[in-house]
Amino acid sequence: MNLPKPIKTPPDKEELRDRLEKLRNLMKNNDLDYYISFDPTNIYYLTNFANYVHERPFILIIPKKGLMKFVIPVLEATHVKTRARCELELHQYFEYPAPQGENWYDIYKSIIKKDARVGVESSMTLRIYDKTPGNKIKKDLIDELRLIKSEYEIGRLVHACKIINRGHKRLLKICRPGKMLFEIYSDISGYMTAKVVGDIKNLNPMVSKAQAVVLPPSVSHDPHNMTDVFLKMEQGGPHVSGVGGQIDGYGVELERTFFLGSVPKEAEKPFNIMMKARNKAFEMAIPGAIMGDIDREVRILIKDEGFERNLLHRTGHGLGITGHEAPFLAEGYEQQLEPGMVISIEPGIYIPNLGGFRHSDTVLITEEGNISLTKAPDKLEELTINLN
Amino acid sequence: MNLPKPIKTPPDKEELRDRLEKLRNLMKNNDLDYYISFDPTNIYYLTNFANYVHERPFILIIPKKGLMKFVIPVLEATHVKTRARCELELHQYFEYPAPQGENWYDIYKSIIKKDARVGVESSMTLRIYDKTPGNKIKKDLIDELRLIKSEYEIGRLVHACKIINRGHKRLLKICRPGKMLFEIYSDISGYMTAKVVGDIKNLNPMVSKAQAVVLPPSVSHDPHNMTDVFLKMEQGGPHVSGVGGQIDGYGVELERTFFLGSVPKEAEKPFNIMMKARNKAFEMAIPGAIMGDIDREVRILIKDEGFERNLLHRTGHGLGITGHEAPFLAEGYEQQLEPGMVISIEPGIYIPNLGGFRHSDTVLITEEGNISLTKAPDKLEELTINLN
Repeated sequence: MNLPKPIKTPPDKEELRDRLEKLRNLMKNNDLDYYISFDPTNIYYLTNFANYVHERPFILIIPKKGLMKFVIPVLEATHVKTRARCELELHQYFEYPAPQGENWYDIYKSIIKKDARVGVESSMTLRIYDKTPGNKIKKDLIDELRLIKSEYEIGRLVHACKIINRGHKRLLKICRPGKMLFEIYSDISGYMTAKVVGDIKNLNPMVSKAQAVVLPPSVSHDPHNMTDVFLKMEQGGPHVSGVGGQIDGYGVELERTFFLGSVPKEAEKPFNIMMKARNKAFEMAIPGAIMGDIDREVRILIKDEGFERNLLHRTGHGLGITGHEAPFLAEGYEQQLEPGMVISIEPGIYIPNLGGFRHSDTVLITEEGNISLTKAPDKLEELTINLN
Repeated sequence: MNLPKPIKTPPDKEELRDRLEKLRNLMKNNDLDYYISFDPTNIYYLTNFANYVHERPFILIIPKKGLMKFVIPVLEATHVKTRARCELELHQYFEYPAPQGENWYDIYKSIIKKDARVGVESSMTLRIYDKTPGNKIKKDLIDELRLIKSEYEIGRLVHACKIINRGHKRLLKICRPGKMLFEIYSDISGYMTAKVVGDIKNLNPMVSKAQAVVLPPSVSHDPHNMTDVFLKMEQGGPHVSGVGGQIDGYGVELERTFFLGSVPKEAEKPFNIMMKARNKAFEMAIPGAIMGDIDREVRILIKDEGFERNLLHRTGHGLGITGHEAPFLAEGYEQQLEPGMVISIEPGIYIPNLGGFRHSDTVLITEEGNISLTKAPDKLEELTINLN
């Protein structure tokens, strides 16, 4: 399969209508009169409007028929109108807090019938849940829809990956011993941000953040270590790069283990085993495969090679309008992979006093198997940067 | 009162011990055996460790006696150890999802006694709530503590304001007709970020984001309008700046209404009324004042001058480890101001086809009254930039 064409425009009405229709089918199956979305990513998915959660709530009410209703603060009405790509019935409250009778929940509860069956997300907070009327049923229906990407979404992810592919290419070019983490972050994040801003007219800054980091060997065994932005890159390796973020609403990632100048002898085996594990994951990640099985077998391979104590995480996670979401390549997640799913493949080995070994790609599951939307060298020779 | 000295270092054990002790007093008053924090800002407040919420939960369990217990993914153990400035008993799970018996909630529920009285936050999600054992009582105790800032916190906020004061000064210097929003954003955000990184050893990037925007008169009547990053600054005004963000964990803001070259005749009255409203808010914002009263009177002043239809929001909100939190200068919020509270004062007037009128400052309530931690010109003459 060829890579689908990149898409750089917001969803059109048909795309959003299609998502809403699918949601209503799920609502029907669950005999729901309303579904309530409070999760900003789910609201974005259905409307193209992005907010962040703070004390003034945004609540999207999806009745089984008719227009979606959106409870919002007055302050945000034009913002909603500018960004939303679907028809919405706006229900505005002035502020939070508010005098009695004028609060967001006074409006909210007036919209929903008391005896209605109301679906709510497991990410809903108690604050909203306690004010939600009706017979509440916890069901993550929008999250379920988001598992399978539409052609439009795949196009957006292809575009987002093009940006980070370029960012990563530049990262390997500028990363040299002595260079500080902060310098690399500033350079590559700035470079990608400029590209995104140039590519996408009316980019939404609320769902855009392109980032790049490299952990040098002193800390690369600890993948979430960001304790010193002045850390310097070193001769040798393993260095582990992480380029990714959200590109106008679509989350992607690309990571590589690489070396500056030379490869320490003791780094060869873990690098090779990581590659074997990664190849196994790519081989297994085809439609019909059980995701938990992939993780189990990949980790058994790593354990059998003597790195049982060097595992820190599962084999991969889903990506879409966020950079971290279902589905998961994780033992215990016994669902099948399906075409249209997008996942990271990133088995890792972490050895204190030596470093981390992980590549990560953003991978689309296709009818035929899978295709990586991220592109970067992956072999040890290619990833040993010549410093001369 | 003089401005307290800026502080640039993480909290010490005594500061965190003091917060914990205060929380335990509130727990005692509410007869709670445990308090559960899932809100990352509250966890940061108690531990100095910052996470963002995703599928792998971080749950802080505060028993009425003994060490706090922290349920975390294995992957984050060293990250927690590096950042936390207090003793914690770590309870690690391997991953999410996980095989039966190895999930985060298997560990979580084993820690808390079934018949215990357990306080939970209203920002807790249903996903966590449903797995929380015991007799659950919704009580926002940490949010309550956060209302009054310690000397340490005030020092952090003073430092954060110094950064944005400098950013805003530079913003007024570089903002000229024709300059694009994106250029200003990049310049000032970069400038402030470099200052922060230079000031704070081991800055925590997870709670740091310095930002600067200016809305030109075409959109400044719509304060959350960020639909075109290529928007150009114009001759005249009102332009509205917004400089702020989180500076190594402390949220602050500074905003000004300004003009490039000249002030349109019709902008004078709303500017002056905004200033009258703002002066009234500063006068009223003293210990013992009811916050709802301040907002009511400030908005009555604006209404009486004929701008009733040009109001979009309350007079102000709290700041602390976030840029938007309790307490609120809002009608319906009938609490007293107290020394140690930090609030924004920012009454605004918004007129389509003319623009927005709002200054915002980060203001500390003191024993004697209040003191603005942000510093920038506020008068019309000073804010009419000479273009020659």
